[in-house]
Amino acid sequence: MAVDTLIEKIKKTNAPVVVGLDPNLRFVPKFIQDKAYAEFGETLEGAAEAIWQFNKGIIDQIVDIVPAVKPQIAMYEQFGLPGLEAFKRTVDYCHEKGMVVIGDVKRGDIGSTSTSYALAHIGRIQVGSKFYSPFDEDFATVNPYLGSDGIKPFVDVCKEEKKGIFVLVKTSNPSSGEFQDREVDGRPLYELVGEKVDEWGSDVVGAYGYSEVGAVVGATYPEMGKVLRKVMPKAFILVPGYGAQGGKAEDLAVFFNEDGLGAIVNSSRGIIAAYQKEQYASFGEEGYAKAARQAALDMIADINAYRPNANN
Amino acid sequence: MAVDTLIEKIKKTNAPVVVGLDPNLRFVPKFIQDKAYAEFGETLEGAAEAIWQFNKGIIDQIVDIVPAVKPQIAMYEQFGLPGLEAFKRTVDYCHEKGMVVIGDVKRGDIGSTSTSYALAHIGRIQVGSKFYSPFDEDFATVNPYLGSDGIKPFVDVCKEEKKGIFVLVKTSNPSSGEFQDREVDGRPLYELVGEKVDEWGSDVVGAYGYSEVGAVVGATYPEMGKVLRKVMPKAFILVPGYGAQGGKAEDLAVFFNEDGLGAIVNSSRGIIAAYQKEQYASFGEEGYAKAARQAALDMIADINAYRPNANN
Repeated sequence: MAVDTLIEKIKKTNAPVVVGLDPNLRFVPKFIQDKAYAEFGETLEGAAEAIWQFNKGIIDQIVDIVPAVKPQIAMYEQFGLPGLEAFKRTVDYCHEKGMVVIGDVKRGDIGSTSTSYALAHIGRIQVGSKFYSPFDEDFATVNPYLGSDGIKPFVDVCKEEKKGIFVLVKTSNPSSGEFQDREVDGRPLYELVGEKVDEWGSDVVGAYGYSEVGAVVGATYPEMGKVLRKVMPKAFILVPGYGAQGGKAEDLAVFFNEDGLGAIVNSSRGIIAAYQKEQYASFGEEGYAKAARQAALDMIADINAYRPNANN
Repeated sequence: MAVDTLIEKIKKTNAPVVVGLDPNLRFVPKFIQDKAYAEFGETLEGAAEAIWQFNKGIIDQIVDIVPAVKPQIAMYEQFGLPGLEAFKRTVDYCHEKGMVVIGDVKRGDIGSTSTSYALAHIGRIQVGSKFYSPFDEDFATVNPYLGSDGIKPFVDVCKEEKKGIFVLVKTSNPSSGEFQDREVDGRPLYELVGEKVDEWGSDVVGAYGYSEVGAVVGATYPEMGKVLRKVMPKAFILVPGYGAQGGKAEDLAVFFNEDGLGAIVNSSRGIIAAYQKEQYASFGEEGYAKAARQAALDMIADINAYRPNANN
């Protein structure tokens, strides 16, 4: 099961951390862009080559210390078909290297349409007598606004393919409260979504007691994380918002269970664009991937300093 | 502006109707699949060729009677990169033919990530000194669960590019009420989302008094549609759920304003798979596209029979 594999890799690396591969072009060093444009021109293909080379450099530097990556598909989709080819190449390369891949796709629709998204990202599609895994991530992020009709088709595919999802519950952004925090019967909406996450995942629980149906809860809202941790005891929580968005390691302890598991903290630009920060500037542009490695090591130490049973 | 173009095409065809190009393989006649597999094998490329040929046949038959199409990207994404190439080919072909394209992508994220999705679907992305329109739809559907941080980047791109969005407010599926109908301060959540739609769209209003920021409200919930029509007077409403999902033309009058405008009703399988229904079976598989045309004509007549000022 995907959640078991994720847990085993977290235990092996002692790092409940995922690196967000969100290669905005402004994070990609000029020398990589120049080389890609020299080969492919200032085209979508050129941009796609640049982000792929950028990713590859980072993956090679973090593969032994980090269990998982989370490519944000919007950053690839914005370069059209060549961009999505770079997404696919990134997923495949991470798998070759043994990393878990969380596709941050935030898809969500209803019925057979949700099934199609699920097949695209974590399943297999039939063409005549053959089967294909189009994008082949291990996990996908999913939007719950359409209710159970939208989520259950994903859960069915999870069951069939031993893959997982993370459902958006309480997102890390400032305006996430606009709808998610509204009180329904005296409780915020995100709690109701959290309860549903618990229910949707109840019969896809793996060897460590965690479900294939996880949740996204922002590091920026630790008080809510504390409540949600209890509402969804079996859900692995994907926690964005650490670092650049303001989430602090000392606030993250509440997202973990007493077993030291139950959460994986994401950092994207804090890692992949570390070389642009004063703290890691000495690595220089050429050393962007080594800067990412150092930033990842620092992040792991920071998180583990507050995580219960960090060396479990 | 995209909404003005849409309105002009609706007026010209007298058809507030959009055909959902959701080419599930089980809708695609065997002769089309066989031909595509003969050329490309039972591969993702073969499936993509089949859905593209299927679409092309339908587009050619409806182009003079229907103002817009709504390709559901999940149905293409499930065939990976070749599928998304068929999506792009479909969008481009519809534009060549002068149709408005609503990309049913239901994307939604925050900040720069939402910007990336917006650029991918309704905007232009910069690579070095060049600009590209990756998927180039006229409208995109957007999920509001993340709040204003997720929507405003789309609205900014709408403003810049004179494109539009439809925000999910009340979806057509049976479980849409699970979260959308929950009462917040005595009113259902979808009303709050509707109010926000009105606010988000307030400074991108076109020549006919409608905004580039529209809403999705299911035909299956006409009572709610009636309320939402008043909550968002300037929003064009994209109405799914007619036909196959159970929405009836007599219930749709409430989605229109007195000017006969303000809504566009979608049908997907009811049109594109009409030949599989008893009513249109005489067209046969070979006549699938002509069956689609007849089903579209019947749908237009059905909707107009109840629409206020239908010949405005």
